[in-house]
Amino acid sequence: MREVAVLGISQTRVDEHWDKSLRLLAGEAILASCMDANIDRADSIYIGNMMSGSANFQQHLGAYIADWVGSRFTESLHIEAACSSGAAAFRAALMAVASGEVEVAVAAGVEKMTDSPAGEITAQLAAAADAEWEIDQGISFVALNALVMRRYMHEYGWQKDDFAPFSINAHANGAHNPFARFQEPISLKAYQRASMVADPINMFDASPMGDGAAAAVLVPVEMLRHSAATPLIRVLASGAATDTIDVQNRLRPTWLTAAERSVKQAYQQAGLSPEDIDLFELHDAFTIMATLSLEAAGFAQPGQGPRLALDGEILPAGRIPIATRGGLKARGHPVGATGMYQIVEVVQQLRGTAGETQVENARIGMAQNIGGSGSNIITHILGSR
Amino acid sequence: MREVAVLGISQTRVDEHWDKSLRLLAGEAILASCMDANIDRADSIYIGNMMSGSANFQQHLGAYIADWVGSRFTESLHIEAACSSGAAAFRAALMAVASGEVEVAVAAGVEKMTDSPAGEITAQLAAAADAEWEIDQGISFVALNALVMRRYMHEYGWQKDDFAPFSINAHANGAHNPFARFQEPISLKAYQRASMVADPINMFDASPMGDGAAAAVLVPVEMLRHSAATPLIRVLASGAATDTIDVQNRLRPTWLTAAERSVKQAYQQAGLSPEDIDLFELHDAFTIMATLSLEAAGFAQPGQGPRLALDGEILPAGRIPIATRGGLKARGHPVGATGMYQIVEVVQQLRGTAGETQVENARIGMAQNIGGSGSNIITHILGSR
Repeated sequence: MREVAVLGISQTRVDEHWDKSLRLLAGEAILASCMDANIDRADSIYIGNMMSGSANFQQHLGAYIADWVGSRFTESLHIEAACSSGAAAFRAALMAVASGEVEVAVAAGVEKMTDSPAGEITAQLAAAADAEWEIDQGISFVALNALVMRRYMHEYGWQKDDFAPFSINAHANGAHNPFARFQEPISLKAYQRASMVADPINMFDASPMGDGAAAAVLVPVEMLRHSAATPLIRVLASGAATDTIDVQNRLRPTWLTAAERSVKQAYQQAGLSPEDIDLFELHDAFTIMATLSLEAAGFAQPGQGPRLALDGEILPAGRIPIATRGGLKARGHPVGATGMYQIVEVVQQLRGTAGETQVENARIGMAQNIGGSGSNIITHILGSR
Repeated sequence: MREVAVLGISQTRVDEHWDKSLRLLAGEAILASCMDANIDRADSIYIGNMMSGSANFQQHLGAYIADWVGSRFTESLHIEAACSSGAAAFRAALMAVASGEVEVAVAAGVEKMTDSPAGEITAQLAAAADAEWEIDQGISFVALNALVMRRYMHEYGWQKDDFAPFSINAHANGAHNPFARFQEPISLKAYQRASMVADPINMFDASPMGDGAAAAVLVPVEMLRHSAATPLIRVLASGAATDTIDVQNRLRPTWLTAAERSVKQAYQQAGLSPEDIDLFELHDAFTIMATLSLEAAGFAQPGQGPRLALDGEILPAGRIPIATRGGLKARGHPVGATGMYQIVEVVQQLRGTAGETQVENARIGMAQNIGGSGSNIITHILGSR
């Protein structure tokens, strides 16, 4: 397999884009990523998206978007893995280039949720869980995560306020990201006063949905041997694993086995361990998910994730910075696009262009995208020369 | 890249499976394909499906199905390219094994349409076309194909009856396929009397929807070097191309440019030309599509596809047998599964197990899956040792 580099990136702001259709949003990110890469063709385009079929009455995003961005006739597919669709598209592009089959691949994530003609986005998000075994029983997606968080607090003795630093860090970082949906810091008091969504998850434990698109251009490293592109951002590893789609069938609902497995694959591929990771763009759809992700990736012992946050180790200057551009919590969570935002943000850090929330001397960054309630988890490690 | 073999296949009957859920159907095909391959593990599972999100309120088919077939923790993704989702899943599996990243991959296609809780399957199928530029204008998917057929008849001077042999051949072959939705031959008179769906497309020009699942196990050829598996079925080539998602923006609505391109890629990869192909499982969603597919693949001059059918060259004993197991017309068209049925049927022919519709001395077979009205076309060529 060939080594692969990320040559170009782009993203739209996560927002309520009522003036832009699905293809306009995706096109904006894809074309800007090609300009960023200084490349005028794509051999393959992979679109990560969860719910365009039900929310926008539009399937078949491959052909739909390839033509729109001027790549008529180019191979193009839609990849779906619920909220991990973005990372799944990136992984598909990575494999296509690594295999030698494709020279220039574009991976994009796009989701348009806020002005869906079908409305009922909560019901559509529920399609990421098990329709028969979970959703038909009357539980929503937030409620599933609330059960996991309640159980976690019970098992390890944490209080609700112990999760506040995850949200406060995300919003503090998002305040410096012009692409973030929310660009205001929040206080502990604001967290404590936030209205409850599904006890114990309140408004500041949960990430906001939104419309958005993010994209990256992948090429073989050998293509850049004589190029001036600097720094060169390499994909060092990619790992993917699933778990039961429903939470009830897991022996330990408070442990992300699929995260542990996909991270282990990635560490092995790259020959790295947690100490080598300079920053971690994790999937903080809910504060409890940030906790579990840190633990599964080996940054904290089981049950000790909140300790890292309380100690400030997740801040940009901490031992393992997370959500450095706002994370899902403040940048926003346009579900099928989120994984690509994470990749774009890791590249920004490795390029040293993350502005006020730049992690000093960032050389190796990890991104982890979670689909469903921990049922499809994809981890990538990127490194700069 | 490594050479890849298809080691196992399986399919359910295309039918109204009111007693089986989406996962039961998919599981049946996947587990039987693994038994056929005599393999008890999969490293990656790729699910082709078009409309489970809108028709079954279930997204995230990767995790949903991997756990169900006993492959909890295995990487698994859902790939969508409208009616070409099946071939897209096969191509993803192929690339994963060819790249060296994956040893045993399962590709499956599944669709459950007949007892959709959401009803309105015609509206959901329309999501394969352009929502804004086509569907919102009031045209259905059949009507789009009717416009193409009408134009084709006008340009080349064919009469409606000239398309009858496509349907008659499909039903004659389907009569011998226990997995076909319709297992009765039809007469020319029946074709002529069939009620009109969207003039000039009548009931026997159009393929029926249905519930179904088909699957294949892919492994590197090197794994089989010392095995007794015989005959060895190799994947000789894979080509993929898109076109505009909407018909109106094509310079020639009566020519499948994406088919021509994907076929050309495949011929080049395999070092073959049309004369080398012993049978062709094409995408006869409508009789006009069978015509256009034959022409784009080089079996007939532009405008001369119906001549092949009228001359009997598409029959199992003809020069280029098509729809040998009934095709979309008689076997049925469970949209996201269809591409995998085609692969399974080509393998049956190459194994010499196609029974009464066996093509004599079949050594090289081609399958072509079309998404939308010709906007995403994927071609595979398989060969037996």
